[in-house]
Amino acid sequence: MFGERLENVRRRQPLIHTITNFVTVNDCANILLACGGSPIMSDDPSEVEEITSLADGLTLNLGTLHQWAVPSFFAAGKRANALGHPVVLDPVGAGTATVRTNTALSLLKKVRFAAIRCNLSEIRALALGTGSTRGVDADAAGSVTEDNLEQVVSLVRGFAADTGCVVAVTGAIDVVSDGKTAYGIYNGHPLMRSVTGTGCQLSALTAAYIAANQDNPCEAAAAAVCAMGICGEIASSRLGPMDGTGSFRVYLLDAISRLDGETLDRMAKVRRF
Amino acid sequence: MFGERLENVRRRQPLIHTITNFVTVNDCANILLACGGSPIMSDDPSEVEEITSLADGLTLNLGTLHQWAVPSFFAAGKRANALGHPVVLDPVGAGTATVRTNTALSLLKKVRFAAIRCNLSEIRALALGTGSTRGVDADAAGSVTEDNLEQVVSLVRGFAADTGCVVAVTGAIDVVSDGKTAYGIYNGHPLMRSVTGTGCQLSALTAAYIAANQDNPCEAAAAAVCAMGICGEIASSRLGPMDGTGSFRVYLLDAISRLDGETLDRMAKVRRF
Amino acid sequence: MFGERLENVRRRQPLIHTITNFVTVNDCANILLACGGSPIMSDDPSEVEEITSLADGLTLNLGTLHQWAVPSFFAAGKRANALGHPVVLDPVGAGTATVRTNTALSLLKKVRFAAIRCNLSEIRALALGTGSTRGVDADAAGSVTEDNLEQVVSLVRGFAADTGCVVAVTGAIDVVSDGKTAYGIYNGHPLMRSVTGTGCQLSALTAAYIAANQDNPCEAAAAAVCAMGICGEIASSRLGPMDGTGSFRVYLLDAISRLDGETLDRMAKVRRF
Repeated sequence: MFGERLENVRRRQPLIHTITNFVTVNDCANILLACGGSPIMSDDPSEVEEITSLADGLTLNLGTLHQWAVPSFFAAGKRANALGHPVVLDPVGAGTATVRTNTALSLLKKVRFAAIRCNLSEIRALALGTGSTRGVDADAAGSVTEDNLEQVVSLVRGFAADTGCVVAVTGAIDVVSDGKTAYGIYNGHPLMRSVTGTGCQLSALTAAYIAANQDNPCEAAAAAVCAMGICGEIASSRLGPMDGTGSFRVYLLDAISRLDGETLDRMAKVRRF
Repeated sequence: MFGERLENVRRRQPLIHTITNFVTVNDCANILLACGGSPIMSDDPSEVEEITSLADGLTLNLGTLHQWAVPSFFAAGKRANALGHPVVLDPVGAGTATVRTNTALSLLKKVRFAAIRCNLSEIRALALGTGSTRGVDADAAGSVTEDNLEQVVSLVRGFAADTGCVVAVTGAIDVVSDGKTAYGIYNGHPLMRSVTGTGCQLSALTAAYIAANQDNPCEAAAAAVCAMGICGEIASSRLGPMDGTGSFRVYLLDAISRLDGETLDRMAKVRRF
Repeated sequence: MFGERLENVRRRQPLIHTITNFVTVNDCANILLACGGSPIMSDDPSEVEEITSLADGLTLNLGTLHQWAVPSFFAAGKRANALGHPVVLDPVGAGTATVRTNTALSLLKKVRFAAIRCNLSEIRALALGTGSTRGVDADAAGSVTEDNLEQVVSLVRGFAADTGCVVAVTGAIDVVSDGKTAYGIYNGHPLMRSVTGTGCQLSALTAAYIAANQDNPCEAAAAAVCAMGICGEIASSRLGPMDGTGSFRVYLLDAISRLDGETLDRMAKVRRF
């Protein structure tokens, strides 16, 4: 099931135009190469339309949003829409700064997204207008657990139905829905929260999976989320007595680059709602 | 002593707003996560005041200073001051380009810093107005050794007294002072100079330590400097026959993420002046 | 032969001013430190002339070209020319976006380059005006192999003669020429294409080699290309059963930091045309 989605990425090698923050841009490029895709990073208004025309998919990531780059998000998004390329939104920090929340909401109006990949605080800010997240990394209060799972599934499903796109919210448990089908994904490892950019990387990965699986974006997104979680588990299993977050980060990329469809299907812990 | 400072970081998990250069920004975010804090990177004038309001401390790092971002340094610094958040300055490259030196001097006039973390060339440029450093990485001529230690302690103590903030100058020996107390720290490893961003990382770490230990910023800064040096020693002790600066960089982050207060106190090589 | 070029880098420790993209800038800084040189990254128009004056060489890399930074490329290039510092061009993505191609062509008119380091698609875009590369990473269609080797040697030699600078085109086989001498370099490993920034890193490395070997820029560039390929081989030889592109990236930097002249000469697989 998910395994076939992964193999399609390796076979079709999608080129993903990624407009993203300067904190994790290198990690995003490396995960795209590791999964079998190809990255092209470009955020200047003078070239984004041409660049996105060459690509198979687009990621728009709002971390470290620069005002001089804002027009690039809209221009690239619209061009990708015109060409039928799937577009993934990562509304990093929605709910922290007003300008990030507003840019995300405005993008949701003007660009048709295939998927939104974010954490619980961010989806709440966009769906419910509640603000105040604590930084950009998933915190306890903003995480999905068994306690709030049903509530989150309902929120995610509703927001997916409203926006017409796949919504993937990641946390201790990940929830992915297109408004009808909903997946709860139980893979992952807490150390993923101790490395910056695992969320950004997942958003780029999601774009690659959807670009290579346009017949079923919801299953593709769920497969990407599940693959990332499994690679977190594999990475943690390699940690030696002196290893910490530095080695974990390296092992995570190793695992993405080695993961195959058979392993993905075997290790997936998924529940359908 | 220092160990308690470290444990406070792990317990209080300070969120550090970091305005920094695009070379080492990923490393800065990862070290903040590794030490038990949390990073939020943001440098656009449209959002820095809001972002810094959410945080517990602020780092201003002048490496790759962009003119469009300069207002962010002042706006975030003033807002952090108004909120009582500690602010750490890393005047990367002061003494190289006039605009960096002048921006650093202007920030020192308009923003109240809890600490300045830099190398010897940079402090000389700011304190004495002598220019011409050789790049942004510590060089031999610009390093603190036994030969110039007393001189440096006197320079650092004087500059700390003049500016009213803790000054931490790192090199072969590190010197930290608040104008009265002065620490000489003998931890560290020469390979730290062969990895970019160890200085930037230390500045971010210092902000986390001070934010979690506001009762004693000088001891907190010294503890951060000492922790970084010890982790350099731990990282070097793991190097195998094929390992070089790539693995050293990974092991350094590993060590930061694993360091505890007991180890910090046991390995600290500190002299008080 | 090449070994001496490497040892000159370690002895002379050239400081390389690098104006580069925000994807791989950290990797470029780290490879410059690893080879024995020193990096200074700076791309703001307000300071690039002063910064380049302090350096021994300059790299201009067009990846993620920002319009606000374009004047920096010209200003730094002209100043470096005036001071006799070697300048290396990496025309990342020439042939993808018009603005990148045009900026590269304009730089070639207004700045005197010591070397151009790029892939086959990029050189074709600059030399022949043919566009449409597939992303910025070397693809199969854009690679140098035995099948097109003679053609490529002729293209590279011709473009080197026309521009008056050393041209280094990397792929499965690398070709380096100054218009007369031409080297074919058979070192390297396919995994180098699965890590972002190996090309950018090589361009920075080339600048360091040329800056430390100004008597023979062609042999210096060939030595840099060969060193990078050999380090790819060394890195791949260390890969364990769980290792992938994350570890490969770390091992590559390890190898650069450990490589000595004797090993470079011993492992070099070079043919002269």
